[in-house]
Amino acid sequence: MQIDINLDKNSYKVYIDELSKLKFKGKVAIITNSKVGGLYLNDILSIVEADEKYVITIADGEEYKNLATIEDILEQLFVSRLDRSSTIIALGGGVISDMSGFTASIYERGIDFIAIPTTLLAQVDASVGGKTGVNNKFGKNLIGSFYQPKAVYCESRFLKSLPKREFAAGIAEAIKMAIMFDREFFEFFESCDINNQDDLTKIIKRCVELKAMVVSQDEREKGLRAVLNYGHTFAHVIENELNYKGLLHGEAVAIGMNMANRLAVNLGLLSVKEFDRIENLLIKFDLPTKYKIKDENAFYNAFSLDKKSENSVIKFILPNGIGKNLIKSDISKERVLEVLGLFK
Amino acid sequence: MQIDINLDKNSYKVYIDELSKLKFKGKVAIITNSKVGGLYLNDILSIVEADEKYVITIADGEEYKNLATIEDILEQLFVSRLDRSSTIIALGGGVISDMSGFTASIYERGIDFIAIPTTLLAQVDASVGGKTGVNNKFGKNLIGSFYQPKAVYCESRFLKSLPKREFAAGIAEAIKMAIMFDREFFEFFESCDINNQDDLTKIIKRCVELKAMVVSQDEREKGLRAVLNYGHTFAHVIENELNYKGLLHGEAVAIGMNMANRLAVNLGLLSVKEFDRIENLLIKFDLPTKYKIKDENAFYNAFSLDKKSENSVIKFILPNGIGKNLIKSDISKERVLEVLGLFK
Repeated sequence: MQIDINLDKNSYKVYIDELSKLKFKGKVAIITNSKVGGLYLNDILSIVEADEKYVITIADGEEYKNLATIEDILEQLFVSRLDRSSTIIALGGGVISDMSGFTASIYERGIDFIAIPTTLLAQVDASVGGKTGVNNKFGKNLIGSFYQPKAVYCESRFLKSLPKREFAAGIAEAIKMAIMFDREFFEFFESCDINNQDDLTKIIKRCVELKAMVVSQDEREKGLRAVLNYGHTFAHVIENELNYKGLLHGEAVAIGMNMANRLAVNLGLLSVKEFDRIENLLIKFDLPTKYKIKDENAFYNAFSLDKKSENSVIKFILPNGIGKNLIKSDISKERVLEVLGLFK
Repeated sequence: MQIDINLDKNSYKVYIDELSKLKFKGKVAIITNSKVGGLYLNDILSIVEADEKYVITIADGEEYKNLATIEDILEQLFVSRLDRSSTIIALGGGVISDMSGFTASIYERGIDFIAIPTTLLAQVDASVGGKTGVNNKFGKNLIGSFYQPKAVYCESRFLKSLPKREFAAGIAEAIKMAIMFDREFFEFFESCDINNQDDLTKIIKRCVELKAMVVSQDEREKGLRAVLNYGHTFAHVIENELNYKGLLHGEAVAIGMNMANRLAVNLGLLSVKEFDRIENLLIKFDLPTKYKIKDENAFYNAFSLDKKSENSVIKFILPNGIGKNLIKSDISKERVLEVLGLFK
């Protein structure tokens, strides 16, 4: 199965369950982490044909998604003398693909990279769209670039080894796409059996299609693409408060969506019944929806460090009913604090 | 005077001696070094209108053109809470514009930047074309991106404070353009008076035009643009051997061109008379043409770390007579060593 990601330049394809042989003219560096490497490196190394193959492993975890790790990777690439005809392969979850893509974008001013996402989250979200980057102490993904892969290979077989929590975290981003863009897809989630292979493939495919639609309309996040940040405005503050520990990104997004939904109810954009339907669906997939805000003023002030807050205007991405979206930048601070107060 | 830099996307203008008012909607950060700042910051700050203005100074010199400095700049930008509607202004020479452009390209995945080059080298070369980056221990400009400014302002008045050596280093890159692309321009150099304001403006204008022609045909250095590296293949090795100390970049390029010319003579592409004419022109502008190579084998091996050497093929950019160029990638190691031996 193939899905075209159509961009002004640098269009590429996402292949679902079609990975067999990968041939390259120059050198290849596979970037992965120790865990994923142990599971899948022999598989990938056996199907990659290249002049020279290198493997670079980095520590597993969001807390290593920083410039220091990028420098480590660059060092290994320079020692291996990769050049502009070389290719980087990202083998892993969103952290690996975000960092590999960023490295590829700045190594000798840009070399090719392809992504082989091994988590559901990365398959449905992180590896489509060309966002790359790392975190720093000011927040998530604040340093990075827009850089498109040459191809993405989503293999559902790689998801079988995923821990239950990580799998659910991926589902959170998939549900996000449904709430924002596709009511029918949302209803499919309510009735589907996630352990059924066909249902799972259908979810991956629909998410990639929806993301492709968004990204091809707005590659550089000037408008529509911001809608994909639904739940993230809140999630980033939560993750930052927790120092990126304890919650998986998708879990933070699930809570963030629930917070955004409360705001949407407060504004009359979402009925209480719809709010409950969404919360019940998140709970069906064992996703968290609660978070204890200690200080809602501090929480509110943290919004303004988010990239999406231009000129200190905080944009909230909200469901306008299930399957439709709305970006609002004129919500009073008092109203937001009132909603945040519900999470104390 | 305005020159259009026409690219697929992100076209922009280079203005020569047209800087008056600069108005911005969001925040502005001016990146400069302490020396240039002392000379021109009051001038620039008085003509920039913005919501908030910040000044970031970095240490002066090629040895600070590294990722550590980029991190320092990023830190100051985040503390000042620049966002995607903000603009970075590069005020300084090539080091400042390369680092400012790179920072702009990775800050929140890319914000606007404009360049105000204050050296002749930066005016005729570094600030046109979108190459950004930093050095590391493996070589020059090995980490970076292609990222276009929104505008470039070349002010000839800023050149009056330039030390004589720095001025000459800029002339070296200008002569490079003439040798590669424009015999008439080369002859203009032989007869011109560099202290004459009109002659100087003419040189800046012609260099920007030639570079615009090259870059608009080949933004990402897939072909023609590599010609701009004439002299640089050798210069980068020299600069690396000297740990970027002692010689200015343009001075190293002057020596590098002389080395490339010797190779061109050896191959029958350049007559001895033309070789002498070029060397005499470099000497007229007080540029060095000699360098003592200690070990020509080590010098040769250092070529292969250069970005331009894909798949270990070393490409030499040579004059094919004055005003024309040729890229050769099939020159035997023995022949190159023979020429390098002339510089012992």
